[in-house]
Amino acid sequence: MVLFDDFEVLDVYGPLSMFGALKDRVQITTIAEKAGTITTASGLSFVADVAFADAPQLDLVIIPGGMGTRREVNNAQFLSAIRHLAEVTPQVATVCTGAAVLAKTGWLDGKRATSNKMAWKWVTAQSAKVLWVPKARWVEDGKVTSSSGVSAGMDMALFLIAKRFGKETATWVANRAEYRWYDNPADDPYAAMNGLGA
Amino acid sequence: MVLFDDFEVLDVYGPLSMFGALKDRVQITTIAEKAGTITTASGLSFVADVAFADAPQLDLVIIPGGMGTRREVNNAQFLSAIRHLAEVTPQVATVCTGAAVLAKTGWLDGKRATSNKMAWKWVTAQSAKVLWVPKARWVEDGKVTSSSGVSAGMDMALFLIAKRFGKETATWVANRAEYRWYDNPADDPYAAMNGLGA
Repeated sequence: MVLFDDFEVLDVYGPLSMFGALKDRVQITTIAEKAGTITTASGLSFVADVAFADAPQLDLVIIPGGMGTRREVNNAQFLSAIRHLAEVTPQVATVCTGAAVLAKTGWLDGKRATSNKMAWKWVTAQSAKVLWVPKARWVEDGKVTSSSGVSAGMDMALFLIAKRFGKETATWVANRAEYRWYDNPADDPYAAMNGLGA
Repeated sequence: MVLFDDFEVLDVYGPLSMFGALKDRVQITTIAEKAGTITTASGLSFVADVAFADAPQLDLVIIPGGMGTRREVNNAQFLSAIRHLAEVTPQVATVCTGAAVLAKTGWLDGKRATSNKMAWKWVTAQSAKVLWVPKARWVEDGKVTSSSGVSAGMDMALFLIAKRFGKETATWVANRAEYRWYDNPADDPYAAMNGLGA
């Protein structure tokens, strides 16, 4: 999981709660520009395990969103590290405005992707070459899966768990968290709510 | 927000994502036995802002659950700090097995409360004097509100936001997170799923 200052906490800990339920089968690493303290605008503090340069080979990299993405899309070093991670990792996922960061690297060009519907105009302005899908809870295109805003990351995480470990395991993880999984990627009321068509 | 080693991350950052959306009106403090690093079994690290002894006067204290509660119900110092916080804070909330910790302090005795349905037997064994409610997404009794497992904390957080700032604000917070708020506290499919009656 990639971290940066002012990430959205539910983008990160929603999916990590789902993967964390499988702690005998899943190992989680948090990765940032520098190892150490990460903070959010609401005053919370976190610890990133390793710097980008020290990231282990991953099976899946997740890029979250949050207000910090407004800063990171102008951080060339951050973008280059993200692009490299996307290139070398077999599975790539974005939550919310995390897709804006990945789009800005150019790596999403020609691929289908979705993102937060409230921030749609800003996100899609990061690259006109991405095939943006406005009405979707999440979108899979090859090795990249992108989810819509904030809580959609949990539904996508369960989809990725189902892909890897089977639907029964994903359902067990959802029930353990008493979480009602929206398992249909087309079920997205937030597109219309934000004036976006299909 | 109370933290301890091996807390469940969604119990904490689900509600804090909701409250954090109102960062101009809400200030968040994380409180633990000692200020500093907190870790979880899945290998994640966090920073607690202050020790119990240095906690500011709060409007609301939230006690999360997670596997660490199995240890903390036997930690007399922790229980005493939790009981003190519950006594001096105008609003008290628990998420998931956080109710087990509060029950063990005795402070919940004679009050109605709910908790995680998968861990029901262990939770309710912490005090026979609590009026445990098996079928509920959350339960309000006077100044204490307890929620069911993990993701139920988000629905309770939105309920508490609605109480304090109005339903329109709570709905805005839910929509911002693209979160489908279960706003009916009686809507709980997890009781029956775990063999619990009404």
